[in-house]
Amino acid sequence: MKGVTHMFKTKYDYLLKKVNDVLSTLITEKESPENTIYKAMNYSLMAGGKRLRPVLLLAVSEMLEIDFEEVMPYACALEMIHTYSLIHDDLPAMDNDDYRRGMLTNHKVFGEATAILAGDALLNYAYEYILDWLMDESKKKTYSLAAGVKAMSYIAKAAGINGMIGGQIVDIESEDKEITVELLEYIHKHKTGALIKASVMVPAILTSLDDEKRNALERYSSNIGLAFQVKDDILDAEGDFKLLGKTTGKDASSGKSTFVSMYGIEKSREILSELISDAVDSLQLFGDKAIFLKELAVYIAERKN
Amino acid sequence: MKGVTHMFKTKYDYLLKKVNDVLSTLITEKESPENTIYKAMNYSLMAGGKRLRPVLLLAVSEMLEIDFEEVMPYACALEMIHTYSLIHDDLPAMDNDDYRRGMLTNHKVFGEATAILAGDALLNYAYEYILDWLMDESKKKTYSLAAGVKAMSYIAKAAGINGMIGGQIVDIESEDKEITVELLEYIHKHKTGALIKASVMVPAILTSLDDEKRNALERYSSNIGLAFQVKDDILDAEGDFKLLGKTTGKDASSGKSTFVSMYGIEKSREILSELISDAVDSLQLFGDKAIFLKELAVYIAERKN
Repeated sequence: MKGVTHMFKTKYDYLLKKVNDVLSTLITEKESPENTIYKAMNYSLMAGGKRLRPVLLLAVSEMLEIDFEEVMPYACALEMIHTYSLIHDDLPAMDNDDYRRGMLTNHKVFGEATAILAGDALLNYAYEYILDWLMDESKKKTYSLAAGVKAMSYIAKAAGINGMIGGQIVDIESEDKEITVELLEYIHKHKTGALIKASVMVPAILTSLDDEKRNALERYSSNIGLAFQVKDDILDAEGDFKLLGKTTGKDASSGKSTFVSMYGIEKSREILSELISDAVDSLQLFGDKAIFLKELAVYIAERKN
Repeated sequence: MKGVTHMFKTKYDYLLKKVNDVLSTLITEKESPENTIYKAMNYSLMAGGKRLRPVLLLAVSEMLEIDFEEVMPYACALEMIHTYSLIHDDLPAMDNDDYRRGMLTNHKVFGEATAILAGDALLNYAYEYILDWLMDESKKKTYSLAAGVKAMSYIAKAAGINGMIGGQIVDIESEDKEITVELLEYIHKHKTGALIKASVMVPAILTSLDDEKRNALERYSSNIGLAFQVKDDILDAEGDFKLLGKTTGKDASSGKSTFVSMYGIEKSREILSELISDAVDSLQLFGDKAIFLKELAVYIAERKN
C-alpha cells in the first residue's frame, strides 16, 4: 500500500480480523434440513474482501470511545447487507458475473434459486441479528434501546429505496444510455455511498454525538463513499483480473457510464484526490484521534483492489 | 363462501379494506430517479390477494383489545414480506410463474433485474417502516419500545432461515425427490406457516399476553398455518385457473410433493378438517370474542382461491 503507513496496515488488519472472527461464527451450519442455505450464505460472507464497512464502523467507534463489542452487531449487519447486494448484483439477470473476489460467484456454485434465497436470507439475518442483540439484556450496551433502534433505522434507510437499492435501480435503468454527471453521482452516492456513510454514522448515533462532530463525520463519509466508487471506476478501466479478482474493463464493454467514461482517467484521478483531501480536512476537529480514519481515506484512493 | 356467515364476510372485507387503505399510501411514486422501483413494488403489493396475514393480525388485535392504528405497521410489514417472497418465488430461476392473482408476475412486467430489486426493496421496507413507527413519538403506542422490538424480532425470525426462507430452501431442494411426510410438514410449516403464526403472535407479544392465552394462540396459528397450505395443495390438484388466478396442476407436473400426492385427496381433506377443528377448539378460552377467528379457520378450509 503506497501512501499509507505500516502502522495503518497493522491496524487495518487488526480490525479486519476482529470482524472476521465474529462473522465466521454467526451463521453456523447445523444438521438440519436447511443446511444448504447456511453454506450458501457463508460462502459469500466468508469469501474475504476488504471489510471496509465494518472496519470503518469499528475505527469510528474507537475514536468516539465506544467498545467494539457494543457495536459489533451493527458492523456485521452492514457486511451482511453489503454481501447480499453483491450476490444479487452478480446474478445473470443483473450483472451476470462469474467471479467475485477471485472466487466463483454464489449462483455459479449453488445455482440461481439458492443464490437469490441466500441473498434474501443475509439481508433478513442482518436485522434478525441486531434485534436479537438489542433484546439481549445480558449484553453490555452503554446506549439506550431508543438509540440502538435509531442506529438500526439509519442502516435500514441506507440499504433501502432511498439508499442502496435506489442507486441500484437507477444504475440498471441507465445502462446503454447517455446519462448526466448528476445522475452518475446519484447512482454512486446511493449504490455504494449510502452503506459506507451508515458505517461512519452508526457510532455517532449510538454515542449521541454533538452536531458539529456529527456534521464533520457526515462530510467525511460522503467524501469517502463517492471516492470509493470513483476509485472503483478507475480500477475497472485500468484493472488487472489477478488483483481485482473479477472481470475488468466490464463497464466500458457493457456500455455503463462511469467517472472514467465521463471525465477521462486523468480528470477522474483529480476528482478522487479532491474528495480525499476534503475527507481528511473534515476530521480536523478530532485531532490525533482521527489519524487512522484519515489514512483510511488515503488508502481508499491508493488501493489496488 | 360456503360454511362461513354473511357477518364473517362483512367483517373480513372491512378488515381487508382497512389494510388496503394503508398499504396503498405506503410506497408513493414520486418524481425521482428511482421511480421504477416504486412502481414495481406497488404493482405486486397492490395486486389484490386475500391479505390473510394482516387481516389475521387485526382480528387478533381486536380480540386482545389493542387499537388497529397501533398494530398497523406490523400488519403492513407482514404483507410486504409475504409479497416480496411471492415476487422472488415467481422468478424464472425459482417457480418460473407468469401469472399471480390473475395478473402477470412482477418480472414479466418489469423484467427480472427490477423484480429481484423490488423484492429486496419490499423486504427491506418492511423493517424500515416498523423502525420509523417505533421511533416516532407522535404515534400512539400503549406498548413499550422493548415490546415493539420484540414483536419486530418475532417477524424477522419468522421470515428468515429458521422460518420462511428455511422452508423455501428445503422446498427447492426437494423437487423431483421422494420426501418424507415429516419433511413435507417442515416445508409447509416454515414456508407458509411461519408468517401466518407471526400474524397471530405479534398482538400477543405487544399486549404481553399471559402464558395460557399465548399457548392457545400458538396452537391456533400452527393449525391454521398448516391448514392453509394443505388447502393450497388441494386447490392446486382440483383447481381452476379462473378462480385461482395462477396456473394449476403445477405441483404434479413439476414433480413437487404435496399433501395430495402423499395422502391422496380424500385423506388430505380429512387432515384439513382435523386441523381446523383443533384450531377452533384452541380458542375456547377466549369465548365469544373469538367468533371471527374461529370462522376464519373455517374460511381457510372452505375457500375457493
